[in-house]
Amino acid sequence: MDIATPVSKVITELKSLLGDRLATSNSVREHHSHDTSRLAPHLPDAVAFPRTEEEVAAIVSACAAHGVPVVPFGAGSSMEGHTIPIRGGITLDTREMNRIVEIRPEDLLAVVQPGVTRKQLNVELRETGLMFSVDPGADASIGGMASTRGSGTTSVRYGTMRENVLALRVVTPDGTAIQTGSRARKSSTGYDLTHLFVGSEGTLGVITELTVRLHPIPEAVSVAFCPFPTVAQAVEAVIACVQYGIPVARVEFLDEVAIASVNNYSKLDMPVAPTLLFEFHGTSAWVEEQAKLAEDICTAHDAISYRWTADTDERNKLWQARHDLFWATKAIIPGYDLYTGDICVPISRLAESITAARADIDASSLKGQIIGHVGDGNFHTAYLIDPNNPVHLKEAEEMADRLVERALKVGGTASGEHGIGMAKLKFMRKEHGKAVDVMEKIKAALDPKGIMNPGKMGSEWSA
Amino acid sequence: MDIATPVSKVITELKSLLGDRLATSNSVREHHSHDTSRLAPHLPDAVAFPRTEEEVAAIVSACAAHGVPVVPFGAGSSMEGHTIPIRGGITLDTREMNRIVEIRPEDLLAVVQPGVTRKQLNVELRETGLMFSVDPGADASIGGMASTRGSGTTSVRYGTMRENVLALRVVTPDGTAIQTGSRARKSSTGYDLTHLFVGSEGTLGVITELTVRLHPIPEAVSVAFCPFPTVAQAVEAVIACVQYGIPVARVEFLDEVAIASVNNYSKLDMPVAPTLLFEFHGTSAWVEEQAKLAEDICTAHDAISYRWTADTDERNKLWQARHDLFWATKAIIPGYDLYTGDICVPISRLAESITAARADIDASSLKGQIIGHVGDGNFHTAYLIDPNNPVHLKEAEEMADRLVERALKVGGTASGEHGIGMAKLKFMRKEHGKAVDVMEKIKAALDPKGIMNPGKMGSEWSA
Repeated sequence: MDIATPVSKVITELKSLLGDRLATSNSVREHHSHDTSRLAPHLPDAVAFPRTEEEVAAIVSACAAHGVPVVPFGAGSSMEGHTIPIRGGITLDTREMNRIVEIRPEDLLAVVQPGVTRKQLNVELRETGLMFSVDPGADASIGGMASTRGSGTTSVRYGTMRENVLALRVVTPDGTAIQTGSRARKSSTGYDLTHLFVGSEGTLGVITELTVRLHPIPEAVSVAFCPFPTVAQAVEAVIACVQYGIPVARVEFLDEVAIASVNNYSKLDMPVAPTLLFEFHGTSAWVEEQAKLAEDICTAHDAISYRWTADTDERNKLWQARHDLFWATKAIIPGYDLYTGDICVPISRLAESITAARADIDASSLKGQIIGHVGDGNFHTAYLIDPNNPVHLKEAEEMADRLVERALKVGGTASGEHGIGMAKLKFMRKEHGKAVDVMEKIKAALDPKGIMNPGKMGSEWSA
Repeated sequence: MDIATPVSKVITELKSLLGDRLATSNSVREHHSHDTSRLAPHLPDAVAFPRTEEEVAAIVSACAAHGVPVVPFGAGSSMEGHTIPIRGGITLDTREMNRIVEIRPEDLLAVVQPGVTRKQLNVELRETGLMFSVDPGADASIGGMASTRGSGTTSVRYGTMRENVLALRVVTPDGTAIQTGSRARKSSTGYDLTHLFVGSEGTLGVITELTVRLHPIPEAVSVAFCPFPTVAQAVEAVIACVQYGIPVARVEFLDEVAIASVNNYSKLDMPVAPTLLFEFHGTSAWVEEQAKLAEDICTAHDAISYRWTADTDERNKLWQARHDLFWATKAIIPGYDLYTGDICVPISRLAESITAARADIDASSLKGQIIGHVGDGNFHTAYLIDPNNPVHLKEAEEMADRLVERALKVGGTASGEHGIGMAKLKFMRKEHGKAVDVMEKIKAALDPKGIMNPGKMGSEWSA
């Protein structure tokens, strides 16, 4: 009598294919049962560590044949539950697919396997004078960043993963490997499958190779530090800078609580006020001119002060607040954790959105701060919670939900860069309305058995 | 006995909805039977001129109910047969959907109906200091430009329609109106339907509204004129400029035949050589610095000469070759027509691609010239043909096909900006391989009855 379950059959097949690279130990499964979110963990039945597209295709084919879930896994830095295998099955960890396949400086592009991390690529690029620009903070895998349509501090100038992925290789849910896009910088041929897979969070296939854009490392960099009396004045200064055509490379916002926490942590005495940190890229003359143009604009918007520099040591000092922020925030209440919110709104609605988020925190029992990639209208709340206090968790969750509700009301989006995962599935229909039906049709057409990262985007939100 | 055909039923229904805005006259049908290509015309059964999304939804619903084709039509400037209704049915002309719905300067975006043309929008924007950047030459409709994923001279700096469409409203093939994207500059929520519809050439639905990005009109503009001994030196200079980080706003290539034709037409004496025309945008100081940086690079690549200016009158003179090009080319042999090729290759392969295209023309019985948006690796061939000579047409077609075959061999694409239409369906599988199967699954899922622009992308190429 054959008592093998579908998943045990898959494991047997994959053992013979992958040997030690198919892990069923508790420790490995446990490591892949959670992400950095607070969502309940769930164990995969096994974890596969393929090295090639052919192995990925074999894994997906085996799972497809037996109707077993496949959950792609990058660096595990997801914040919204993307990689939690809530239906079990095989977690496909891409960490051994970490080869930089090709760097083509003349074409300003690199071809990488999905497990390559952004820092790994940038180390490799150093000799070329080029950089991979997308910087979400964590040293995420580039495959994961593409799957989540990630971005970060430099996206105001260089774009998000949406703009920086030129082509993909993908194993589709029936085990077929396809190429999307090409090495040409633009194309008018066929449906844009590259952009369909970017941001699809592992629900339409497994990315096995990415062709990403590179950008010249700037000859010179200048930075500026600029506190304002109010959030509105800071945001209006950003709008004016962008409208004027200053190509700001980064413009980060820190609210007064964030500034106070860094003052305390790093023994600084920055004015406790809503503050903008600018970074400008270009030639020496051009980064000086940009810094001075921004100074004129910030001064006209009643900035409290404006300090800028192009000197490397001075730059690090002016931006110290941003660099120290994570640990400074953690240190506000020792032992507490950060619960993070993430929205993006039209920039015209940014000041009121930040102000409302601040008011919500002030009305709660929690401490919290707000930082933002404000050139894009994207900002994050960080609520400080006692990890052992369910009341705190509930309060933070409700505040993060209200943050999203307000963003949607002003024409924004439920996530600027952290993605849907499981945590934000409940907002999909509210944000996208009947477009969700179109997404579901696409999911059903490409993954009729529903094996790719089930319980996530594509099939669950309409329930 | 009911002898009404499906299409006559639709016409009857739409007559009562649209009145005079449902045309069945021969002259209107004839006007919608062709585009600017040489492909055989085909009459639609009727032409509808809706004004609102509700009317579009009613038209599509009626056609869906009776299985009648719907062919969206913008300004009619397609070059590859996109709008030819080869299965008859209803052509949906968006020219009365020409309302600029909203301009939001703070958000650097405009909301327009699909029939708004790019020039119309830019006239409206003048007071704001902002511009819509995509410039394909023709005064195309913005809906049509999105459907073809159009681009043009400024895309090296400001992007194609892919980068400049932020959100859409679309009537899907079952008559449902959906919204894709939002007014937020970035988002990590859901499948990227905006990019799926951009470039889908009317085969997945009808675009009824577009939210497009705007860019600041530069404070200053400088231009440069720079002939080179060889194509390779010109292209290498472009690569070096881009790698250096000079944000060229335009960089156009004209080969020696193009230069000679303008010399002849406009009584000029430009050196008959492969020539680059640069345009730089920024502040006065910055456009001067960019022009001088490019001069250093071009000189290092053995440029024959390099002239630049930021003066408006002088700028027009330096760029006269580009402005006069169309008519100068038409004047090479009076009465002859231009047959146009369009490919895009990785920029590292551009010099060899242009050189091969030139050799192919020289080996033919036709005259022809080559121009390109070379910062993107995109170039066009124009073959001069006697419109009454079938041998000429055949020779031009075969040359354009070889152009594409060579582009695909070096990792390029069959169309940089003109699209697939009908003319390039034959290259879809060669370029995209098994990804075509995924495209067909999407087409079948969204348009199971195959009513949207049948005989084009999504359903025909695998035959």
